[in-house]
Amino acid sequence: MTFLTVEPATEGHALVIPKRHARNLFDIDANDLSAVAVAAQEIARWQRDRFGCAGVTLYQANEPAGFQSVFHDHVHVVPRYPGDRVANAWRDLPRAAPVDLERVAERLRGAAH
Amino acid sequence: MTFLTVEPATEGHALVIPKRHARNLFDIDANDLSAVAVAAQEIARWQRDRFGCAGVTLYQANEPAGFQSVFHDHVHVVPRYPGDRVANAWRDLPRAAPVDLERVAERLRGAAH
Repeated sequence: MTFLTVEPATEGHALVIPKRHARNLFDIDANDLSAVAVAAQEIARWQRDRFGCAGVTLYQANEPAGFQSVFHDHVHVVPRYPGDRVANAWRDLPRAAPVDLERVAERLRGAAH
Repeated sequence: MTFLTVEPATEGHALVIPKRHARNLFDIDANDLSAVAVAAQEIARWQRDRFGCAGVTLYQANEPAGFQSVFHDHVHVVPRYPGDRVANAWRDLPRAAPVDLERVAERLRGAAH
């Protein structure tokens, strides 16, 4: 299901949600997750074709530490225009050392791998 | 396919990409899009379970105006920790007038609806 947010970051800022309740990415059913992703794609194409936006950015927040503030899973589909007020979430990140990345990857893969 | 980025915003920052080339959300095949979404979910759960992060944020950028800088479709899966350097992409947005939202919705739905 798709609707416009009442607090748009840019004109046409839409939210895509599953009809069946899920709190967020951690508990959403895989089929519902796929349906939401495909709906977000359709909305992004509409934004491009009908609003002439030069780009689109998707945001999806999980748990308060991940910026989630409404606890029904939702994907932000944000049409982007030159000079809009959307900020980069990060910039100029330092490069990680390969040896550190290997350690992180090891932990992420877990014991079973 | 999933790998760690060499420029992580936080520890464990992973990218999920389709094996088959797509530039971004506008042209990715729907089945590949679903597979990427489900893989991102698995990675987010690993991050939560193995890194103990309190949240996860997904970002997906399309075209330079949408913050895309590498032109093979990718989803950022960013584990979130208290006090990390990830910024909100927007905040304190003004509320849109219902009559304006109706006009935007009309344009988004297009002539066929």
